[in-house]
Amino acid sequence: MDSLTMRPEAIEAESFRIIDKEAGEHGWPEAEWQVVRRSIHTSADFEYAGSMVFSDGAVAKAVAAIRSGSAIVTDTNMALSGIGKARLAPFGCRVSCHVADPDVAEAARHEGVTRSIAAMRKATANPDNRIFVIGNAPTALFELLRLVGEGKAHPALIIGLPVGFVGAEESKNALAATDGSIPFITNMGRKGGSNVAAAVVNALAIIAARA
Amino acid sequence: MDSLTMRPEAIEAESFRIIDKEAGEHGWPEAEWQVVRRSIHTSADFEYAGSMVFSDGAVAKAVAAIRSGSAIVTDTNMALSGIGKARLAPFGCRVSCHVADPDVAEAARHEGVTRSIAAMRKATANPDNRIFVIGNAPTALFELLRLVGEGKAHPALIIGLPVGFVGAEESKNALAATDGSIPFITNMGRKGGSNVAAAVVNALAIIAARA
Repeated sequence: MDSLTMRPEAIEAESFRIIDKEAGEHGWPEAEWQVVRRSIHTSADFEYAGSMVFSDGAVAKAVAAIRSGSAIVTDTNMALSGIGKARLAPFGCRVSCHVADPDVAEAARHEGVTRSIAAMRKATANPDNRIFVIGNAPTALFELLRLVGEGKAHPALIIGLPVGFVGAEESKNALAATDGSIPFITNMGRKGGSNVAAAVVNALAIIAARA
Repeated sequence: MDSLTMRPEAIEAESFRIIDKEAGEHGWPEAEWQVVRRSIHTSADFEYAGSMVFSDGAVAKAVAAIRSGSAIVTDTNMALSGIGKARLAPFGCRVSCHVADPDVAEAARHEGVTRSIAAMRKATANPDNRIFVIGNAPTALFELLRLVGEGKAHPALIIGLPVGFVGAEESKNALAATDGSIPFITNMGRKGGSNVAAAVVNALAIIAARA
């Protein structure tokens, strides 16, 4: 087949066929594999087959949260851009990101914290926000976990995929060490990113849209 | 140091220190290394230290193109989101992406091509667009190379970093096989992505902003 004349849907199907073949015996249940596979698809990195971690029943709970129209909030505009809104619109899921909001910049200055932390505080102050997607900032994930611990945030799902060399791994270890009462999807190690975080949301939305 | 109380600038400096240390003897000249290092920083993936390819003098030419205010066009809104506009504004560099434009969707339907191809045709039709940033769609990069070959596009720089399993590697091989008369920055293999493409632009803009 010539990739230049293939439809996008056919390219995606062929990509998934290649990933399935090369991943071999991965041991993931079907639902989790759809999330892991889309993460590999967006990164071309098979490490995610070994590094992703789901709390018990996270995919089923995430799908239920999407189907009930939970608002989604991200830590970066890149993750916001990568999330397919048309797929989420029928469920009534709004998607937003506060990191570039003028009042967040002002609050960050006033409180002496990063804009990522100030944006997470603003996000949790709105109880409609139930799905938290963190693809970049370890400080955003640490702050969210702190707010959860203090009973000030009640997420239906945390997608925690910060990337980088300072704090990213530690923030995801902290998320994975929670008791699972808040469903989470994360990965171990330094990798991650807004692109992978968006891919996880998109995979969940596709599952949610199925009968 | 506690990453929770570090300033973003300090976290970045510490990240670069770790990357420099772990990369060891990489052999990249200073200017190219700043681009490669920021790609590693955004992906936490040291593979870029071995897989990136620059045409002769690409960084110097890219910096000159930015300093002269060249308009930048991306293939995805994710790459558009990831590019720091405040850093480019002093040079007069506009950044745009046409993939979600209504007239591009219409042209794609009418001409029976993907929206990525139709968006690239629209981008090249505006001679102000001189820097082309492709982080996702192999078809966009193939189309750009076709338009260049036919004398219909005259980029000052092509950043070609499509990711994926169908066509991505081939599109980058095609870019790397050009004669270098159009400066390019690319990588070999399946990896890449809008996040890395944006990181490359940001690295170039930081170099351009230095005295």
